[in-house]
Formats: sequence, C-alpha cells, structure tokens
Amino acid sequence: MDRSQIVRDSFAQQIIMQTLGISLANVEPGKVVLEMPFNDLLVQQHGFIHAGIVTTALDSACGYAAYTQMPDGAEVLTVEFKTNFLRPAQGETFRFEGIVVKAGRSITVADGQALGITAGSEKLIATMSCTLMAVMPRN
Amino acid sequence: MDRSQIVRDSFAQQIIMQTLGISLANVEPGKVVLEMPFNDLLVQQHGFIHAGIVTTALDSACGYAAYTQMPDGAEVLTVEFKTNFLRPAQGETFRFEGIVVKAGRSITVADGQALGITAGSEKLIATMSCTLMAVMPRN
Amino acid sequence: MDRSQIVRDSFAQQIIMQTLGISLANVEPGKVVLEMPFNDLLVQQHGFIHAGIVTTALDSACGYAAYTQMPDGAEVLTVEFKTNFLRPAQGETFRFEGIVVKAGRSITVADGQALGITAGSEKLIATMSCTLMAVMPRN
Amino acid sequence: MDRSQIVRDSFAQQIIMQTLGISLANVEPGKVVLEMPFNDLLVQQHGFIHAGIVTTALDSACGYAAYTQMPDGAEVLTVEFKTNFLRPAQGETFRFEGIVVKAGRSITVADGQALGITAGSEKLIATMSCTLMAVMPRN
Repeated sequence: MDRSQIVRDSFAQQIIMQTLGISLANVEPGKVVLEMPFNDLLVQQHGFIHAGIVTTALDSACGYAAYTQMPDGAEVLTVEFKTNFLRPAQGETFRFEGIVVKAGRSITVADGQALGITAGSEKLIATMSCTLMAVMPRN
Repeated sequence: MDRSQIVRDSFAQQIIMQTLGISLANVEPGKVVLEMPFNDLLVQQHGFIHAGIVTTALDSACGYAAYTQMPDGAEVLTVEFKTNFLRPAQGETFRFEGIVVKAGRSITVADGQALGITAGSEKLIATMSCTLMAVMPRN
Repeated sequence: MDRSQIVRDSFAQQIIMQTLGISLANVEPGKVVLEMPFNDLLVQQHGFIHAGIVTTALDSACGYAAYTQMPDGAEVLTVEFKTNFLRPAQGETFRFEGIVVKAGRSITVADGQALGITAGSEKLIATMSCTLMAVMPRN
Repeated sequence: MDRSQIVRDSFAQQIIMQTLGISLANVEPGKVVLEMPFNDLLVQQHGFIHAGIVTTALDSACGYAAYTQMPDGAEVLTVEFKTNFLRPAQGETFRFEGIVVKAGRSITVADGQALGITAGSEKLIATMSCTLMAVMPRN
C-alpha cells in the first residue's frame, strides 16, 4: 500500500495536530515536513511558542518520517527524544522537518529541525534527535 | 521576594498551560507539581495523550522547579531536554513532577516524572532529564 | 540460570573495563554498581576524568542493570543515552550506579548516577538516562 | 590568537586521547575531525568498541568544534550530550566529526557523527547531540 497515504491517514487521526493548527506539508520516503502558523494560545510567559509545542510538532515530523519506511501493519511508537533549543520560537509561521538517519528492523533513528519564518527569512530554532520503534500487532 | 509567588505569577502568563488545561498543584523550593485532566483534543492516533503534550507539561514542571531557586530578576530558559516514554499516556488525570537535581549559578539540571492516574492508581508514563539556564537581564 | 552470574561473566568479557580499571562492586535485580579509582591516564585538559569515561562506566552500569532482568539467551544493546555533567569528575575513587526505571519486553529504560568520592565524602558528578534493548538471537 | 592552534594545544593536554589512541585529523572554524584505529583493549563483550569510547571521541570532537569559535581565554565545558547507536562499532579505523550547529555567547550546540571504516567503506555508527558552555575565568 502507498506509505504516503498511510502517513496522511494516520496524521488525520492525530487530533492534537488540529488542536494546535499543525498541517502536513510534505511526505516522501524518509522525510516529513509539517507547518504551523503562530498562535498566541500556544505561548509561554515571554510570548514565544512553548518549547513543548515545538517538540510536539518535531516528534510528529520524526515519527511520520520513520513511519514512511515501516512495514504495512506496523505501528510507530516514540521511544525517546531529545530537543535542543537554539533560539526563541518566534515567527509568523513554523516549519518542522523530520528526516530518517537510520531505519532498522525495529528501531529507527530520526533527526528533526524546527524553523521560525518571518517575512520569508528562516531561522533554526530547535533540533531533535528521536528514537522510534516499529510495533507489529501481536496475534 | 517570595519565589513561590514569582513562579505562580509566571505560570499564570504561560497561556499554553490554560490552552492545555494544565494547572499548578504544588510549588516548593526545588520542586513543582502540575496536573492535567485527560482531554481528547490532545490525543495522537491511538487515543493517548501525545508524547509532545506530556513533554510540554514536564518541561514546565522542570523549568519552574529550577525557577524556584534562581535569583530574583533572572529569567529561566530551557536549554534542552530528553524524554523517555515508558507506557502509553493513559489516565483520567495526569501528574507531572519536576525536581532539581543540581542548581548552579547559570545552569540547573532537573528531572521530571509524568504519571497517569486511573481510579487512584498511578503509573509512571514518562521521565525527563532537563537543562535550564538562568538568564539575567542585560542593562 | 543465575542472572547475577551471567552479568559477572559478561562484564569479565568487557576488556575496556579492565583497560579503564573499572570493577563490578554489586549486582542485584535491576541494579548494578561499578567502581573506578582515579587514574591520570584518563583525564581531559584540566586534569579531571574525561566526560566520556564517566559515560563509559555509566553505560555499563545501566546496561548490566537492564541485563539482570532480561531473559536468558538475550543480548543487551545500548540504543541511546544522555548524560548531564553536574560537577568536574574529581575524586580519589568513583562509583557508578545503574538502576532500571522500567523493564519492558524489548526496551528497558535505566537511570545512572556517577559519584566522585574524596575522603569518604561523595558528590554527584553526572546523571545518565539510558535506553537498552534485549536482542534475542535469530535462528 | 590562532584558534586552531589553541585547539591543538588543548587537545595535546587531553591525556585520555593518547591513552585511547585518538588523534586530531582536522581543525577548521566550527568543525573538528578525530581519528582512532581499532584497538582490542577498548572492546565490550562482543568485540566491538564500547559505546562509551565512541562517545568519548564524539564529545571531544564536538567540544573542540565549539572551542574553535569561543573567545580567547574561555574554557569549554560539556553540559550534556546524547548519543544514538546505529550500528555495532566495527571498523579498521574510526572517524569522529563534530560540527557546530549554533554558537552562542555562553551556550554552543554541536552535532557529532562517528563512522566505522573498513577497506575504505564508511558506515555511520553513532550520532551525538551535544551542549557546550564557554566559561570565562572569574577574576
């Protein structure tokens, strides 16, 4: 089955993505791009997007990047991730890219980048290193 | 000034906490506890709370735990965090505890634990290891 | 078979432990303690034990803590770890404790603590959060 | 002063690098490359280089990459790192690359890659995400 369509179907079921206004911009084998406009319901005490929300989008980008290369029937699970915050999460819009570094039989490692975009100018605001697991349903 | 009150005032300005329904349950020196009821607007594709939302609450718990021990006038910044996911984020309510491991002059390290609570029974669902920085305003 | 003995046998085969002078101080279900005397062949530019050597010991402590609870025949593999450095790695001797946080069918999460000991006084110098995997031999 | 020479001088004082047989292959602004031949004194129980030793080299590569862009007089300190292990650390020789992702006034973030090289063929065996701090001597 078309893995890209499987990703799109699963993404549509992540209600949190709609709640946060995050959309799927691109899906290709081993890479997923998400986008989110600035939203002042998602800010921390200084008016920037909360680090955890940036992380939520990065996790979904990395998870679905991994999912593009998993076998049909598998579910994708986040084992762990680490995020480094490089700049305040400022921008009119944000782009989140997840890229597979190494796809294994059960464990996949993916890297993510979050960019804040203002007037067409992009700045790297955070990086993620993420471990995902393919879980096959047990019969 | 009362650090506990400073934490409460800052927390009240984190609009994202209201958006997600996260409240401040306890503040003491070096430790902060947050709570959140289950909310089906925050779920991923399997109906569990999204890993990034668990992380958002853990980051705020760790950040404010660190903030309780920072000097007046300092701002608290998340440098990085890592979260391990141990079980699906299931529960009627969730509790998030942030505890300072080592408070330094500029760098503080805190650990976080997320618990899912169902019918009074608690399960550990995620752990965080977080690095925070105290930033003094430059004149 | 006695898991403690399996751990001891495997540890004896980690040649790097002998090279660095690291010994097995204690093994119990879900917890392993290692020890290392100060050694000036292992220092960085300021005369402290290199962060990577502290990490080497913590990884073995966490890995073997996980291994105590794995099924016979499984091999233990480090998926990833994160280490936070809290103080310079100073001490006459060092103790490294690995404790299982959650043992799963394939994935185990363990936490580690490194302590520097001088004149009987202990200081926490680093913490680790580690993901291990049980790998069963494929026939 | 020539930052490249400062890096070389500091590297020469990391006794652990000599102990492990790690040498400095290249230094340029924001990037440092280290090399190490296989050494059977550094192996874990399966005969591969121990994950902690791979991490030791990656930490030095990332730390010195950060150090190339720090002001004269500053010392470089590892705040934390995370390493993901992608393949067994096999190879005749190993190369470790540290690259600065974002250099800040006090905090620098660097990424590292470890490659195992056999008969001229390279394989990515581990990735690091590392936070470094510039510490100015207090007068």
